[in-house]
Amino acid sequence: MNLTRRALLLGAGAAALAPAIARPQPETRPGIGIAHDPPRDRRFAYTPVRTPNGWTLPYRMNDGVKEFHLVAEEIEHEFAPGTRAVCWGYNGTTPGPTIEVVEGDRVRIFVTNHLPEHTTIHWHGLLIPSGMDGVGGLTQPHIRPGETWVYEFTMRQHGTHMYHPHADEMVQMAMGMMGLFIIHPRAGEPRRIDRDYAILLHNWALHPGTSRPDPSVMTDFDLWTFNSKVFPAIEPLVARSGERVRVRIGNLSMWNHPIHMHGVQFDVTGGDGGRLPRAQWRREVTEIVGVGQMRDLEFTAVPGDWAFHCHMSHHVMGPMGHGIPNTLGVDQAGIEDRIRRILPGYMAMGETGMADHQGHTDSGHMRGPDNTLAMMAGKGPFGNIEMGGMFTVIKVRDDLAAGDYRDPGWYTHPAGEQARKVSDVPGIGEPVRRGTPRADAARDDLPRAHRQHRH
Amino acid sequence: MNLTRRALLLGAGAAALAPAIARPQPETRPGIGIAHDPPRDRRFAYTPVRTPNGWTLPYRMNDGVKEFHLVAEEIEHEFAPGTRAVCWGYNGTTPGPTIEVVEGDRVRIFVTNHLPEHTTIHWHGLLIPSGMDGVGGLTQPHIRPGETWVYEFTMRQHGTHMYHPHADEMVQMAMGMMGLFIIHPRAGEPRRIDRDYAILLHNWALHPGTSRPDPSVMTDFDLWTFNSKVFPAIEPLVARSGERVRVRIGNLSMWNHPIHMHGVQFDVTGGDGGRLPRAQWRREVTEIVGVGQMRDLEFTAVPGDWAFHCHMSHHVMGPMGHGIPNTLGVDQAGIEDRIRRILPGYMAMGETGMADHQGHTDSGHMRGPDNTLAMMAGKGPFGNIEMGGMFTVIKVRDDLAAGDYRDPGWYTHPAGEQARKVSDVPGIGEPVRRGTPRADAARDDLPRAHRQHRH
Amino acid sequence: MNLTRRALLLGAGAAALAPAIARPQPETRPGIGIAHDPPRDRRFAYTPVRTPNGWTLPYRMNDGVKEFHLVAEEIEHEFAPGTRAVCWGYNGTTPGPTIEVVEGDRVRIFVTNHLPEHTTIHWHGLLIPSGMDGVGGLTQPHIRPGETWVYEFTMRQHGTHMYHPHADEMVQMAMGMMGLFIIHPRAGEPRRIDRDYAILLHNWALHPGTSRPDPSVMTDFDLWTFNSKVFPAIEPLVARSGERVRVRIGNLSMWNHPIHMHGVQFDVTGGDGGRLPRAQWRREVTEIVGVGQMRDLEFTAVPGDWAFHCHMSHHVMGPMGHGIPNTLGVDQAGIEDRIRRILPGYMAMGETGMADHQGHTDSGHMRGPDNTLAMMAGKGPFGNIEMGGMFTVIKVRDDLAAGDYRDPGWYTHPAGEQARKVSDVPGIGEPVRRGTPRADAARDDLPRAHRQHRH
Repeated sequence: MNLTRRALLLGAGAAALAPAIARPQPETRPGIGIAHDPPRDRRFAYTPVRTPNGWTLPYRMNDGVKEFHLVAEEIEHEFAPGTRAVCWGYNGTTPGPTIEVVEGDRVRIFVTNHLPEHTTIHWHGLLIPSGMDGVGGLTQPHIRPGETWVYEFTMRQHGTHMYHPHADEMVQMAMGMMGLFIIHPRAGEPRRIDRDYAILLHNWALHPGTSRPDPSVMTDFDLWTFNSKVFPAIEPLVARSGERVRVRIGNLSMWNHPIHMHGVQFDVTGGDGGRLPRAQWRREVTEIVGVGQMRDLEFTAVPGDWAFHCHMSHHVMGPMGHGIPNTLGVDQAGIEDRIRRILPGYMAMGETGMADHQGHTDSGHMRGPDNTLAMMAGKGPFGNIEMGGMFTVIKVRDDLAAGDYRDPGWYTHPAGEQARKVSDVPGIGEPVRRGTPRADAARDDLPRAHRQHRH
Repeated sequence: MNLTRRALLLGAGAAALAPAIARPQPETRPGIGIAHDPPRDRRFAYTPVRTPNGWTLPYRMNDGVKEFHLVAEEIEHEFAPGTRAVCWGYNGTTPGPTIEVVEGDRVRIFVTNHLPEHTTIHWHGLLIPSGMDGVGGLTQPHIRPGETWVYEFTMRQHGTHMYHPHADEMVQMAMGMMGLFIIHPRAGEPRRIDRDYAILLHNWALHPGTSRPDPSVMTDFDLWTFNSKVFPAIEPLVARSGERVRVRIGNLSMWNHPIHMHGVQFDVTGGDGGRLPRAQWRREVTEIVGVGQMRDLEFTAVPGDWAFHCHMSHHVMGPMGHGIPNTLGVDQAGIEDRIRRILPGYMAMGETGMADHQGHTDSGHMRGPDNTLAMMAGKGPFGNIEMGGMFTVIKVRDDLAAGDYRDPGWYTHPAGEQARKVSDVPGIGEPVRRGTPRADAARDDLPRAHRQHRH
Repeated sequence: MNLTRRALLLGAGAAALAPAIARPQPETRPGIGIAHDPPRDRRFAYTPVRTPNGWTLPYRMNDGVKEFHLVAEEIEHEFAPGTRAVCWGYNGTTPGPTIEVVEGDRVRIFVTNHLPEHTTIHWHGLLIPSGMDGVGGLTQPHIRPGETWVYEFTMRQHGTHMYHPHADEMVQMAMGMMGLFIIHPRAGEPRRIDRDYAILLHNWALHPGTSRPDPSVMTDFDLWTFNSKVFPAIEPLVARSGERVRVRIGNLSMWNHPIHMHGVQFDVTGGDGGRLPRAQWRREVTEIVGVGQMRDLEFTAVPGDWAFHCHMSHHVMGPMGHGIPNTLGVDQAGIEDRIRRILPGYMAMGETGMADHQGHTDSGHMRGPDNTLAMMAGKGPFGNIEMGGMFTVIKVRDDLAAGDYRDPGWYTHPAGEQARKVSDVPGIGEPVRRGTPRADAARDDLPRAHRQHRH
């Protein structure tokens, strides 16, 4: 019976059955993991993780073991329409597919190396035998090009984890080799999670005009990505008002990113060690996710369009030239074209700011070299959002069906709940400036006022 | 009656009344917020925030709504005496004035744009309707030059928050547009706060000899500031021994700053989500305040002069040239002047260290270009403090009046409580060096000693 | 009797007695601290700290005061065999010797300055009088070359702390002046610690071919070190299976390092403020240790060879050239030698990655300038570990004697607990790739499957 199903799955008719492969199911059931009926035992049900712009790797059950197959290989990756590079990844993508299992599972992972150099896979954060840890040279020989190796272990924990090479690591990670490894708690979630998103942070030294990331860069990267995409190519995170949403974040970049969410205070409910005890949840609007760390952010969705991004200004920008002169406040008529004859792709800063640069690849007077994203992009309902890189929008609506992840378009603001232009500031007079009698008096008075009424 | 007072306030006689505008007051009282008498209801009393080198924006009450008016504009800013730049700020300053309100307040904020390009204001960390969130293009059209827009919302939280543009953000923040937004808890503080300081962290690429910050710099900044000032121009934090002091810190720079306090272990009592439950207070001497984060540090003041600074060595220095040769240990006689003929403003490192550089703008043989601060500065009671940038002194004295924020001068150390020079090391002999028999024997013995007495 | 012992210690016969100086002892006992017998009072027993590659400074008891003597001086330091530099340190080493005392101790520390410029010592994190705080210019005059000063204070706390200059700080710390200051709790550990390691993080701008660190570098450092050593010169952390191990980490570098441990989830049990209450322990696999912070990581040892390192890819590499062209995917035959005629020491990236660079100083076709470490190094049992910098191995074995810190060699993996090469992937067919019908179908089905069985 198992064999029959497996044969079907792997044969020509596999596509028809495949949709069910990763469907939640009673984990005790042997076989290839196909469950056509809703599971009777609800203890093991979980909300499948959604990897924006990514995907979850199907497995097959083989005598009670979940089997996965990862292939390390060179790929062509698109960061956003128009910007592609030769990268390295798994099974055709960067990040590689998300692996999603349940605490208690026995897991067997085949790894085939189609790269031009050796590799390994380290299961970052997993509590497994030393020989399965994937540190090339230390815990195993390297996996040479053309070879297939197998890792096998039992999930003795739950939480958000990652996988990546531990071999020529600086290069292989700079080229995009990484993935998420999610383990759901066997006992189920203590609090129901309605939407469970997973994002992997990364950065890329893809210098304008080049086609491969440069692994020698330490801090001045060109592209900062969520799941290897830059805004506006990053899918929005969608939820229904009142739903409990989790955003799992792993960081395999080269910066400890301060990840900021608009609209709510989220709870940091999990980290490297799985779910935190309730008493340790921290309420934040910005959480530093360190390199090599994982953080789970949870919140109850509030209606609106809410920015969600790294708070480093440069990490929400597209690629910028480095070491270019500062022309803010400088009339540059004629200068840029002359410099460009010497330095192709040179783009001057704007005279009044950068806002006139947005979408510069489309404009006539600001041209980047080939394969260059706009520095600030993303058309919103009210104009250009002027963001790039590690930025997306959490879109919360009252009327979404559960499990509907489709982009609902832009938010319609209720009457009176939006900033508005006014023709003047009625009755408020001149704005207060420091150094004017009104402001100075107010300031100097503060300590006195305090002294007066408190003591 | 309200109208009369408002007319008075806004007319020629306003200056006389203005001092009381921001004075603590019963918040239920309508009108323009003037309270001549100490409030009878103590529930709403709070210690006003003190923004060192900054100021608090007066408001007026208008039918139960607190009205503020912010003007985005180009300013000339002084980082320290002798170092000025053209920056962007609000109401004449960077940071803009601190906004200080109480949980439950209804707030209306007019924003006028006097910049040469469009802008918005995002209320960082505030729980407000999506349409009031100030993300240009996403939640509202941009505020064009010359326009005035109005934001209005109710404070549903308390804590330390910030405001800044969400439009051409990289440039506008690099130019200095930012401010603090403090919300006091409606129920009062669970523990009385005697001094409540607020500091906003920032960095500036103001290259020596230039007059405007360069927004394209990512990591190698020239100036690292508390409230847009560098030491020694930063006001000291003053307190009386035994007082409970809070230092609220917001970070809108480009680095996750490790903020270090001498003399005490502080408690981290609040963050992005307002005051932390008591069980979550962490006791530290250095707290990383991430970009886009807010942290409240509380401690009971201990007498002395205590350094308070970022612990990154370069963030407590004045501007340095980058990419200059390392001349430590090199006799440079005659070299520097020759290089300077080619590269104006070139400053060699000292031959024996940097200590001979301190105050180099004042010295004959080390000259920086115009508008260049000393790298290490600040005259202390015992010589040059050799610091710059994000550094100030917490001055705690036994005899200060409550609410007195004036600089009390330098600390007088009690007898026997200060390091002192000695003529020799009595009876201790030669210092122990590694590799000598005494040290090696001591080290090698440790495991044995341990084994011996524990097992 | 005290005098006699002291005379002995400091005289010609001192070496014979010295081994016992730092041995655990009843702290109430006067004298020079020599305890030949196991202490009767177990309250004050503690496991001595082990500073890998470092050492603990012996003290002498003088009328109930523990006396130490630190000498600030220029040294020649070896980062790894073959890579030496002129640095600054204490008593012949960088880091300086670890100071190890007990809560309640009265401590007197003599500091002699043998540097070419003035210095001080700041006791980072210690709760001591303002005049003992060691901030040159602010709390004391600087210690000039040739002078000896004395600091004296009582330990009113316990935990992991540090010492470093607060004088020409950027230069003196960049040159290596720093040390650990450990205070054991007077009441003993709430939970027995079997191995207590202490590591100080640092970075060095020792440009290839130069002999002194360059203090002007802010982010692009050449060497990232544990206790001023780079892998493979860093001693392994050794433990017996089941032992409770603490790794104390202090950071005086210029980066907030995400320190990652394989094999276990550790508890963060202490920080700047000493031991954390049990309810605040956080379980992690990566902990950001901020600049100027201290963190205690505790775990129960699990058998194996476990990597322990900073997770920044560049911080586990040896020195790299900066600003070199990216040649990944480029056939470089003949190019490198031609560039090297112009730019000595130029090393191209590999055509297929960096793995062919490992140990490049040994290879014929890749030559660095003198005094240049291999970028990736460390021979393991299964090949080159391809790491450098902030990397070492935690070696846990079942059969170690307590207190035995000797390197036990490489781990022998139990049968079936190691990744292995396979000749094919039996029965699993072609790997699933995104965009293929199997993967697309699986992914698209997830929301529907979820909707179906949950609602």
